[in-house]
Order: sequence, then C-alpha cells, then structure tokens
Amino acid sequence: MIRIILGSKSDLETAKEAIEILKEFKVKFELKVLSAHRSPKELIKYIEESEKKGTKVFIGIAGGAAALPGVIASHTHLPVIGVPVETKSLKGLDSLLSIVQMPKGVPVACMAIGKSGAFNSAIFALQILSSQDKTIALKLKRYKKEMSNQIKKIKIKL
Amino acid sequence: MIRIILGSKSDLETAKEAIEILKEFKVKFELKVLSAHRSPKELIKYIEESEKKGTKVFIGIAGGAAALPGVIASHTHLPVIGVPVETKSLKGLDSLLSIVQMPKGVPVACMAIGKSGAFNSAIFALQILSSQDKTIALKLKRYKKEMSNQIKKIKIKL
Amino acid sequence: MIRIILGSKSDLETAKEAIEILKEFKVKFELKVLSAHRSPKELIKYIEESEKKGTKVFIGIAGGAAALPGVIASHTHLPVIGVPVETKSLKGLDSLLSIVQMPKGVPVACMAIGKSGAFNSAIFALQILSSQDKTIALKLKRYKKEMSNQIKKIKIKL
Amino acid sequence: MIRIILGSKSDLETAKEAIEILKEFKVKFELKVLSAHRSPKELIKYIEESEKKGTKVFIGIAGGAAALPGVIASHTHLPVIGVPVETKSLKGLDSLLSIVQMPKGVPVACMAIGKSGAFNSAIFALQILSSQDKTIALKLKRYKKEMSNQIKKIKIKL
Amino acid sequence: MIRIILGSKSDLETAKEAIEILKEFKVKFELKVLSAHRSPKELIKYIEESEKKGTKVFIGIAGGAAALPGVIASHTHLPVIGVPVETKSLKGLDSLLSIVQMPKGVPVACMAIGKSGAFNSAIFALQILSSQDKTIALKLKRYKKEMSNQIKKIKIKL
Amino acid sequence: MIRIILGSKSDLETAKEAIEILKEFKVKFELKVLSAHRSPKELIKYIEESEKKGTKVFIGIAGGAAALPGVIASHTHLPVIGVPVETKSLKGLDSLLSIVQMPKGVPVACMAIGKSGAFNSAIFALQILSSQDKTIALKLKRYKKEMSNQIKKIKIKL
Amino acid sequence: MIRIILGSKSDLETAKEAIEILKEFKVKFELKVLSAHRSPKELIKYIEESEKKGTKVFIGIAGGAAALPGVIASHTHLPVIGVPVETKSLKGLDSLLSIVQMPKGVPVACMAIGKSGAFNSAIFALQILSSQDKTIALKLKRYKKEMSNQIKKIKIKL
Amino acid sequence: MIRIILGSKSDLETAKEAIEILKEFKVKFELKVLSAHRSPKELIKYIEESEKKGTKVFIGIAGGAAALPGVIASHTHLPVIGVPVETKSLKGLDSLLSIVQMPKGVPVACMAIGKSGAFNSAIFALQILSSQDKTIALKLKRYKKEMSNQIKKIKIKL
Repeated sequence: MIRIILGSKSDLETAKEAIEILKEFKVKFELKVLSAHRSPKELIKYIEESEKKGTKVFIGIAGGAAALPGVIASHTHLPVIGVPVETKSLKGLDSLLSIVQMPKGVPVACMAIGKSGAFNSAIFALQILSSQDKTIALKLKRYKKEMSNQIKKIKIKL
Repeated sequence: MIRIILGSKSDLETAKEAIEILKEFKVKFELKVLSAHRSPKELIKYIEESEKKGTKVFIGIAGGAAALPGVIASHTHLPVIGVPVETKSLKGLDSLLSIVQMPKGVPVACMAIGKSGAFNSAIFALQILSSQDKTIALKLKRYKKEMSNQIKKIKIKL
Repeated sequence: MIRIILGSKSDLETAKEAIEILKEFKVKFELKVLSAHRSPKELIKYIEESEKKGTKVFIGIAGGAAALPGVIASHTHLPVIGVPVETKSLKGLDSLLSIVQMPKGVPVACMAIGKSGAFNSAIFALQILSSQDKTIALKLKRYKKEMSNQIKKIKIKL
Repeated sequence: MIRIILGSKSDLETAKEAIEILKEFKVKFELKVLSAHRSPKELIKYIEESEKKGTKVFIGIAGGAAALPGVIASHTHLPVIGVPVETKSLKGLDSLLSIVQMPKGVPVACMAIGKSGAFNSAIFALQILSSQDKTIALKLKRYKKEMSNQIKKIKIKL
Repeated sequence: MIRIILGSKSDLETAKEAIEILKEFKVKFELKVLSAHRSPKELIKYIEESEKKGTKVFIGIAGGAAALPGVIASHTHLPVIGVPVETKSLKGLDSLLSIVQMPKGVPVACMAIGKSGAFNSAIFALQILSSQDKTIALKLKRYKKEMSNQIKKIKIKL
Repeated sequence: MIRIILGSKSDLETAKEAIEILKEFKVKFELKVLSAHRSPKELIKYIEESEKKGTKVFIGIAGGAAALPGVIASHTHLPVIGVPVETKSLKGLDSLLSIVQMPKGVPVACMAIGKSGAFNSAIFALQILSSQDKTIALKLKRYKKEMSNQIKKIKIKL
Repeated sequence: MIRIILGSKSDLETAKEAIEILKEFKVKFELKVLSAHRSPKELIKYIEESEKKGTKVFIGIAGGAAALPGVIASHTHLPVIGVPVETKSLKGLDSLLSIVQMPKGVPVACMAIGKSGAFNSAIFALQILSSQDKTIALKLKRYKKEMSNQIKKIKIKL
Repeated sequence: MIRIILGSKSDLETAKEAIEILKEFKVKFELKVLSAHRSPKELIKYIEESEKKGTKVFIGIAGGAAALPGVIASHTHLPVIGVPVETKSLKGLDSLLSIVQMPKGVPVACMAIGKSGAFNSAIFALQILSSQDKTIALKLKRYKKEMSNQIKKIKIKL
C-alpha cells in the first residue's frame, strides 16, 4: 500500500500522472490532502494509522516551506518520498530546499520539482515494492524497456 | 514568557546573543532543544503545555530543512518568530526559504540568517511584549537611542 | 490599530487579501501608500505620528530594493512586519533579501513573498494584538480550527 | 545487499558516517569507486553484475556535474539513492541539481548535500530493506526512539 | 561530420536554428534523439559507431539533470559541445550546472542556455572543422563580417 | 567634495583602498559612519547638511539589507554610488540586490561586491568630478595608462 | 552630451522610458546600437570618437554575458552607466553579474535590471550633468518633489 | 599553437595544471596576461597577431565580470575556450554567467569553475588539435584509458 499525501488541493495537478502510473501498475494506493501547517494533528493521526494498516511507502507532495514530507518522516520509520511543487515566485527552489535538506537521521527521498518529480515518486515507490513483488519488478523492467524503445522509434526529418 | 526552541544543540552558538539581551531586559524566558524531525512528539507536547502556561511568543531557531518554526506555528495561535541558522553548504539559504515561505494562514516571522537574526528575534519578542508592558517599551526606546548614540561617537582617523 | 504602508500603488494587488481578513476580524487598520525612496519625509512623518496615535503594529509591503519595512523599523520601537512583493525579473528574491537581512538591533518580521505573505502579515499582526485582546485570540483559534476543518472535508475522486 | 558507489576517492570523506551506520546495523554492503565520466564502462559492468548478484539498493555519491546516480538509475530498475557532494565553488548546489532534476521515468532518491545526506542515504537504504526484514525494521524504530531520547536529555545552563 | 544528439524530442525546438545554420554552411551532420537516462545503451552504441565512422564533433542538447553531453564525453575522446535546455521550473540553471561542472579530465564545451546556445554550438562546431577546412574558415569570417554589418545598418528614430 | 558613509564601523575594512586612492588623487573627501537602520535621523541630517556644503557625490558602503545608499539617494538629488559589502552567510548577494534594485526615479550607481567595488566607487566619483576638473581628468587618464602598462610588464616563466 | 549604446536592437524596448525622460529634460543625447561581441571594432571606434566630441557620460544597455558597459569603460576614462537587460532564461541575473562585478580600476555604475534600471540610468546621467548645469539641477529637484507629491495624492478606498 | 590568456596575474594559480598537461602532451602554447578591461588595446593587438601567426585555439581564463573570453571571441573566428575563475564573494557564479551566456553568433566554449575547468580547457584544446594530429589523438585515447585504470586500482578498506 502506497499513501500519497498532498499539502493542498491545488497540488493535485502536480500529482496527476503519478496517479495514472500507479493505476496502470495496479498497485493499491490512497490519496489524501493533509497539510503539515494547516491540519497538523489530522496529518499525524493519518500517518500513525497508516503505519498500523500495512503501508509500505509514503509520498508527500508540497510546495513553498514544504514541511510535509519531513513531518511524515519524523513520525514514521517507513520510507518517505518527497515531491517539491513548483511555486509562483521561487519556482520550486523553496520547495526543493525545504524537502531535500533534511537533518541527519531523518531522510526524505527527494524527487525533481513538479510533475516529473511526482511521476517519478510513483516509479520510485514501485521500485521499493518490487523487491518483495516479482510482478512489479517485471513490469518495471518492461516499462524501462519500453521507454528506450519509444526513443529508438523517433524519426526527425531535417 | 518567551519560549525559545533550538532545533539542535549546535544552534546554541547562534542563539547566544539573543539570550544575553533577554537577560539584560530581565524578561522571563525558557530555552529548550527540541527537533521537529527527531523529537516531533516532545516538541508538540512542549508547545501545547507552553500555550497553557502563559506563553506570549515562541522563537524557533533551526537550520537546513528548518521545519521547526513552521511546526510550532501549526500547533499554536500565538506569534512564532523563526531564525534561519547558517548551514555548511548552502549558508542558510535553505534554512531561510524553509522558514519564510510559509503557506497562507500560518505565519512565521522570519529574521535574518544567523546570529544577527537570533539577536533580533529577542528584540522582536520584546517589541511584542512591550505593547502590554510599559517598562519593556521604555527600555526598548532607550536601547534604540543608545544604538544611535554609539554610532555618533565613532571617530575614524584617515 | 494596525498601519499598513505600501511602497507603491501597484502593491495594492498583493495587499488585497490582507485587507479582507482584517475587515473580517473587525480590527481597526489604516492603509497608506508611502515610498521609502520616493517620499521619505512623508513616510517618516507618518511613522512618527502613527506612533503617537496608538499604533500597535506596522506592516510594510514593498518590492525590489525594498527598504520600506526596514526604514519603518528604524524610526519606531513598535513591531514591524515586512512583506516582499514579487518582482518582474528576480521574482521577489531581491525584495525578500532586502527585507529579511536586517542588521542586529533593528528587526523586521519577514513574511513569504507575495499574496500569501501579505495575508500572513495580517494574521501575524492579529496574533500580536491577541495577547491583549481575548476576542481576537478566540477568533484566531476559531480561524485555525476552520482551516483544519476545510482540509478534512476535501474529497478526491481517483 | 546495498551497493555504494563513490564518484571519486575524495568522496570517501563524505561517505564515512554512512559506512559506520551500515556496520552498526550489520547489513551487507559493498563500497566501490567508479566514475560516470572517467570509468563509464567499468561502472556499467558493475551495475549489471550487481543486479544479477542480488542487490536491493544502489547509493551513488558524487559532486559537480554529478551524473553518477542518474547513470546508475539508467541501467537498473532497482531503487537508486543519490548523495550530492559539497563542491569547492558552488558548495554542492551543482551536485544537488544534477542529481535531483531527473527526467520522467528514471527516478533518483536525492538526499541532502554532504555528510548528513550520505548518512541519510544509509538510513533510507535500511528503510527500504526493512520492509522484508523485521530485524532491520525493529532496529530502525529503536534508532528513531534513541534520537528522540538523546534530545530529551539535553540540558542547557543559561 | 557533426553528430547532434537531443536528450528528448521536445529539445528539437531548441535545436532548430542550429540545424538551419549547418544547412546554410553545407556541412554534413546527423541528428538523433537518444537519452542518457532513458536509452543509455543505444546512446553508447551510437557514440561508439559514430567515432568509427569519422565524426569530428558531438553536440549534446539536454535539459534538467542534463547528463547527456557528459555521458557522450565519457565514451569518446572527440570534442563534445553541450547545450543546456531551458527547463520549466529552474529555467535551465539546472541544465547549465549539470553540463558545465564536469570533472577534471572529461571536458564538455558548454554553450548558453536555450536557442542562442544551440545556435552557437553549431557555430563552434564549424570553428573546430574550420581548422582543416579553408572553405568553412572563409565562410565563418564572412558570417562574422555580416553580423557586424547588420548592426551598422540599424537606424533608430528618436 | 566626496562624502563617504559607512553603514557600520566594520565596513571600514572594505573602504580602505577607496580612501587610499582618493588621498593619492588629492581630492577632498569626508568619511562618516552612519546607519540607515540604527541612526536614521543623524544620517538624514548629515545628508541635508552635506548637500548645502557643496558635496558633489555621495558614496554609501553597507551590507545585508543594505538600505544606506538608497536612503541617501532618497534625500538628495546628487549622484549616489553604492557599494555592497560582503556578508557572512550570503556573501554579499543580499547587499548587492538591496542596493542595485532601486525603483524608478531614484537611482543608485551600484559597484561590485567588496573591496574592488569600494575602490571603484572612488574611481567613479573621480570620473564624475573630472568633468569639471581638468587635473582629475588628466590623472584618471594617466591612471588608466599605468594599469595597462603594469599588465604589459608581467612576465610568466613556464 | 549623453551617449546611449544598446547591445542589440531588441534592447530598445528596455531603453524607451530613458529616452522619454531625456527628451523631457531637453538634454542632448545620441542612441546607437553597437555590440561588444558582434561589432567590437565599430564599438571601439564610436567610443573613441565620442570621447573627442565632448561626451559627458556613456550608458550601455545589454543582456546575457553583457560585456558592453565594461568594454565601454575599458576604452574611456569617462563615467559609464550599465543597464542589465532582462533575459529569457535567467531573468537578467546573468546580465546583472556581468555588468556589476567589474574588476578594480574599471568601474561601471550598475542600475537595476530592466526598464526601471534604464530609466534610472537617464536620471543618473542627468545627476552627473547637473553638477555643471544649474538648470538640470533645478529640474532634478523639481522632479524629485513631484514624485513625492504624486504619492501623497494617492487615495485608496478600503 | 594554443594561446592562453589570463585576465590577471592572480589567475595563474587556476591555470597551473592546464600548463602541466600541455607540457606533458608536448604541444606548442603561449601564456599571456592581458585584461579585457585594463589593457583592452594590447589584448586586441595580441589576438589579431596571434590569428596571423597560426593559432588553432584560444583559451581565456578570467573571473568576476569575466569579459575576456567573449572579447577574444569577438575579434577572431577561431575557437575560444573560456574558464571562469572562482571569485571571493560569488564563488565564480559571476564568472560562469559572464562567460557562458554569450549572444547568438559569438560562441565561447565554457568549462567548469576553477582549476578543473582550467585543466579541462587544455584537454579540450588538445581534442580540437587532435583532428589534424594523429599523435595527439593517440595520446588522448591513452590518457582516457589511464584515467579509467587509475580508478579501477583504488582499493578502500572498510
């Protein structure tokens, strides 16, 4: 089970392709909007309950002073992936540094800023699951193969 | 009562002058080391108890993915001042953006990076207290006067 | 009484939601356009008069070489909140650093860049007022509660 | 089995504490120096052989135009963790962006710049292993507990 | 023979004017889409075959964690020119640092971010060819002359 | 008459070579320490008196939220040169942006960060004076000549 | 006489308001397009001729690796003002650093990025001229007064 | 013949290893100190003479507003390599952007900041020469091989 937490409803746009690929891989996941700053208690409650109910990975998607992934990591020993959302003024540099510069002992696996990062958080979650799940491992290999094939097929007329 | 929370023991160096000035102003304050990422439950417990025991202002001093001031602000309606600690690689730019770029609804009053910022967090806390406390207000005016006087006295030989 | 000073008329767009929330909270406030660089004497006169007429907090909203909040702070011992306005080229990084990096002894409470920051300057000003005003304190708690409730209600269809 | 690859011998300094914690957790790991730019074929050979010999996670530690973690990720479907090494001029901002901004489809889990990041890459690798290994999971929980306890014990004399 | 490699099909937009100028100079060139991260083996195969078939210069055009030019340089002793593509969030600063900060021993000749950089990669490739090819040298001199003449002709009405 | 104002006594280190060159050129100048934030009234008084007493150029040297040059410019119609002092955390990037990003209508002539910038502020002030003073003009030409000569004389043994 | 040099025709957009204000002040000026990189000889010739024909100030307006103002300054002892043009990817940060970070001995007076900077380069040029020209000095004082008056008149309805 | 130009004598430190490798490869080269800003005419004269005397590549090594490589490129149609020197305040980010962001039509091949970049400028110059010189080509291949071998030999004791 993968638990995706968005820091605000507007982050759904960033998360969309992550959701698509998880559906495609047919793994179980849940999506929640819970803010580290605006609904901290609900967030903590959700993390603790999720841990008990068999979660394998958390994904936290947030922008600005993006404390969400770090706060998740502070309340669980499970792997947490963080996705920095692009922001209006600083274009996600603020989100990136807030997520990646975690202190010693509490890692967050930071992805690229924006949609590519969100998509990759899903792939990375699948890579974690794949060590226990041969089917996912196989699908990931096939997915990798296909990416390469798609590039091979590109023809450009000069 | 002013409550100062350091994200780690090493932040004490940054906080020193803030402590001096608070002693000089003879206001009550408490200093604690509590990490948003490494001891989140103790932190929350401390914030909640502090709120009940008559706290006026919180000061959070932290570096890197400096979630501390924002996490304090998420658990209290009291004013929270944040001080970005200078970091080894990014020199506190990471701390600054993690503290200042708070989302709508949950403000943190961000000070300058490092010691000046920590010192100013104490002055700013005193400014908040001064609206109810004439003695502090008077002392602040005097402090301001003295700063200006000290500059007037500087003589430079060319 | 909260005094909001805009560095230029164009900063009104940034300030709008701050005004809304202050109206909603039914606190007294005044809004002025006064530039640290283009009308410095009028600015100083206004700060000095405001201090005498019972002001509790100043809010300075400005962009670029945003000296406004710092100049306010240099002329008063009252708390000053600074809001960095997003700029065309540097996206408010210039405004942010001009406001947050204040020297030892003259703090400015810096908020996030742009509209969220402006909104939060209002909330932070209310937090300062709340220590003397139970009604505001109560409203702030309720506001915090409501934020959290709104998030709880969000449902996302996958 | 965790495979740690350093982009150059000088990155060992950054990796030291990662090695310590892995020893402490008594998990199997291997450490190699292999450069994406200076020994690309040996690197690819090593990745491919590692995949066959039962590797669970790769850790790539590199600085500057830090292609190493991305190149590992391009040759395996296993999870890859990247650690940006602090550089002389740009302080690791170059390493960070080279590692974190991976394209859609090929994730690298980026840690903080420098030693904390390296240490956390070990913790994160352990978190990945822990989903199949109860002993590691238990040790991680205990480690988390201890971190929190150590902070609780800190006493500061004012 | 100049070999241009694009990291993804979307980089064609950036490369367009480079193609135009090469056509204008009537030199032989080939354009391929091959990703360092998504089709690494095809990329390496292409580099090795190109080296055998008389290539004089490689041009790698890529964005984000732009490993492409560096990976080309790691597999050939021929000169490699790198063009950082403008990215959505970080505007190509990520691409620039990923390309320019190459380690000692494996140079990449980095151009400006975006279309000007791509255009200049073609000019620079021609400058390299010109040392063996008098016709290209002559054309380059003429091109330089013409640039200067075009500027001389500009008239501005005040 | 050139008036140099330092934002704090510690800025004297940065200003030293500017003082030397002005002495060498035998022009009249005055050096004062006056802070835009800590002694604003004394600063304004000094600017206004200086304007009446025949000043030709102001030089403001300051670091951090370096409002000094801008504040001088806001109180005089005379040319103001600004020198951003290198700061501990942000290395003068904060000083630079605070000085250079002045709003429309109130220019400050910004020099490079640190000692070179301070030195150049003196040269630039001399260039301004030279339009009315043939001797200075001549000396500047000679200085320029000498710089070039000194470079010509450099011999490097390989 | 003020000589304005644009690095490319596209910089005219940035320069427009500078031209307006100079017309308004009725001072003599000339506008030329000459590139430091694309027409270096014509540029140098123009600088040398301008020096002989009674020029008081040069203004160089350029973007990217904006060598123009520095190259002007290298060929004249007259004051040179530089205006960094906003660029597509890096938003003028490249132009700013290329203009402001001049070496010891060859100052360029750097203005803000973009249109405000260009406008201010005209005002600053006028400030330089004003020391020999009472009429310009008077007009500048009046302009300053008017700026302040315009701000005073702003009324905002809440 | 390779011509290396240093913007100032202090850049020799950065250039040292470039000189070593060129000596090792036994190619002809010349080293000169000539500043784009302080000795522009001597620089141009040197470029023009060098072009006539059979130069194949120019290398320009400079810091700050590093106009040197671009100015060389503006006066020759030969390939120009630029090396950004690390600066005191901005650590070479200023040098990097001043060199790499060249306008359309006038390329400079930018290397990494500092010593690695200087070393690589020599390697890249050799790569350009190698297309006409089989011996250099062979040596480059051998050098590449050796780099890879040196890495293979590294043993780390855990």
